[in-house]
Amino acid sequence: MKTILAMEYKEDALHMIDQRKLPHTYEIFIAKTCQEVDFAIRDMVVRGAPAIGAAAGYGAALAAKSYQHEEKSEFLVKMNESLDKLNTSRPTAVNLMWAVKRMRKLIETHHKLSVKSLAELVLKEAHTIVREDQAINLAMGSHGNTIIPQRATILTHCNTGALATVGIGTALGVVRTAHSSGKDIFVYADETRPRLQGGRLTAWELMQENIPSTLIADSVAATLIRDGKIDVVLVGADRIATNGDTANKIGTFMLSVVAKTYGVPFYVVAPTTTIDFDIDHGTHIVIEERNSEEVTHIEGVHIAPEGMKVYNPAFDITPHENITGIVTEKGIVRAPYAENIMKLKV
Amino acid sequence: MKTILAMEYKEDALHMIDQRKLPHTYEIFIAKTCQEVDFAIRDMVVRGAPAIGAAAGYGAALAAKSYQHEEKSEFLVKMNESLDKLNTSRPTAVNLMWAVKRMRKLIETHHKLSVKSLAELVLKEAHTIVREDQAINLAMGSHGNTIIPQRATILTHCNTGALATVGIGTALGVVRTAHSSGKDIFVYADETRPRLQGGRLTAWELMQENIPSTLIADSVAATLIRDGKIDVVLVGADRIATNGDTANKIGTFMLSVVAKTYGVPFYVVAPTTTIDFDIDHGTHIVIEERNSEEVTHIEGVHIAPEGMKVYNPAFDITPHENITGIVTEKGIVRAPYAENIMKLKV
Repeated sequence: MKTILAMEYKEDALHMIDQRKLPHTYEIFIAKTCQEVDFAIRDMVVRGAPAIGAAAGYGAALAAKSYQHEEKSEFLVKMNESLDKLNTSRPTAVNLMWAVKRMRKLIETHHKLSVKSLAELVLKEAHTIVREDQAINLAMGSHGNTIIPQRATILTHCNTGALATVGIGTALGVVRTAHSSGKDIFVYADETRPRLQGGRLTAWELMQENIPSTLIADSVAATLIRDGKIDVVLVGADRIATNGDTANKIGTFMLSVVAKTYGVPFYVVAPTTTIDFDIDHGTHIVIEERNSEEVTHIEGVHIAPEGMKVYNPAFDITPHENITGIVTEKGIVRAPYAENIMKLKV
Repeated sequence: MKTILAMEYKEDALHMIDQRKLPHTYEIFIAKTCQEVDFAIRDMVVRGAPAIGAAAGYGAALAAKSYQHEEKSEFLVKMNESLDKLNTSRPTAVNLMWAVKRMRKLIETHHKLSVKSLAELVLKEAHTIVREDQAINLAMGSHGNTIIPQRATILTHCNTGALATVGIGTALGVVRTAHSSGKDIFVYADETRPRLQGGRLTAWELMQENIPSTLIADSVAATLIRDGKIDVVLVGADRIATNGDTANKIGTFMLSVVAKTYGVPFYVVAPTTTIDFDIDHGTHIVIEERNSEEVTHIEGVHIAPEGMKVYNPAFDITPHENITGIVTEKGIVRAPYAENIMKLKV
């Protein structure tokens, strides 16, 4: 089912589809160093919480490789620095911090190994993260498919597909699974201002796989929901608090309010790695504010008046009471979230 | 207070600020014929319900002028054709139909006059429409100002200012009035996809007059409303049914749902000419669907994948139960709307 590969590690480098250039140019961005991976995450060559996590894993592997001729103590210090840097490349996606932590723990556990063996181990772990993510996506697709009617019109937000992960996707993975299981699926993809990941990336993925779909401006969704044109809203997540409050792409919250008002099911689709067990309420999630050019310019064209002030938060918080369920690889979590999410902690 | 002139009739032509070119280029589009006015309305050189009405008046005047050497019967037939054509230049703004109807009635009433006198009368009537609109805007500003706190953060949608009218504006006219009356006003202007009238036009007007303001993507508004950052939402209207249901720029409905959910006052600001007394429910209002390039392209730059289908309604319907009040030149109308709106019929 999976044909789009957001990233691939080969010839000692991380090859990523340059998502800044889609849908018009299909270009591969090759990162040969951890710094280049760090840049790719910051500049959104690669985006989507699970994909960022996987990329960070390879960033760590490239760092380890570059330090593999150092003394052990030097290696450990430099790895620490590289992981610190990677950790700050985006502030909201918890998968990033999760991948960095995982690598840190791996090195700690095996610190008695040779530097070369450690470097190999880190690369192996990065591959494992990818394989796990692929399996997790398939599991989410399969659990999610149980809530999709035989004939369904689905509203999606942002890009939550193969480009946002290293598998079939989270929310869009459920769409893919439902479609390929023979259900009659129609997708309304909202464009997702300001960066237009829906219009650029989700639309591209849907067209690649011939899933019937239509693109809308973000504010059209409300009328479709009210008029009974949407059977289910599926969104991804960048970070989930233990009470179920969910940080996701700006605009998610708005959709949740309208869906709740008109009784349309609203599901978050995210792997359990997206849950931040250190945070028990959405208000504690740090929201990344991105630069104003994302709003004032589109593809380099200036659209707002020179000097106009802009407020550009990248994410918003959807309160748990607006969420019908959270589809994870371990099953669908429903209210009471505070209780049921803690059961997922391993 | 008013410095921006959306249109000016001089030297036998209608001079309009070309709103397709703002905010980067300030250019005057000169229409010397009714056909050119018709084009200007269709192509959105001029937009905003009241401005469209005024432009249509001048379109009629230019038509009448061009037929002023015809026989009376020929004049009447040709005027009828021109008015029919103007009437279809945009489907949702009721002010357009209202202006056309007003000209038709004027000609009928005075059909015994000479053709030349009739042509002069039509031009005089177009000027009257403009003067009336200016007075109406001032009255709306003054009524609207009564609901604006001394220190207020106002959310606006689309452009409802001097560019959308021939006066100080409708919703933005209230902002102007409040600001110039010495209140401490801050405006969040949403960009209003797909055509970005907020980001291009409202932002431009606010900057021209140094009203403190910040531009946001449309989907940011929901979080601001929830977090208590917005004191009042002010929007315009393209057509209002007699039950209070309001057709306005796509995205208005979404804001109304969020405002209602979080108890933030939501006011429509529109002259009574926007009320369609022939329509008693929002579901009967025809919603214009515009071409897909408005979504797939921005300023000529292609942003969505080639061939992607688009649904692009220009307006949506906000049900009366989401509206705190309708600010008209005759005062603020509140629920029960069906009853109170009929009182405005003269």
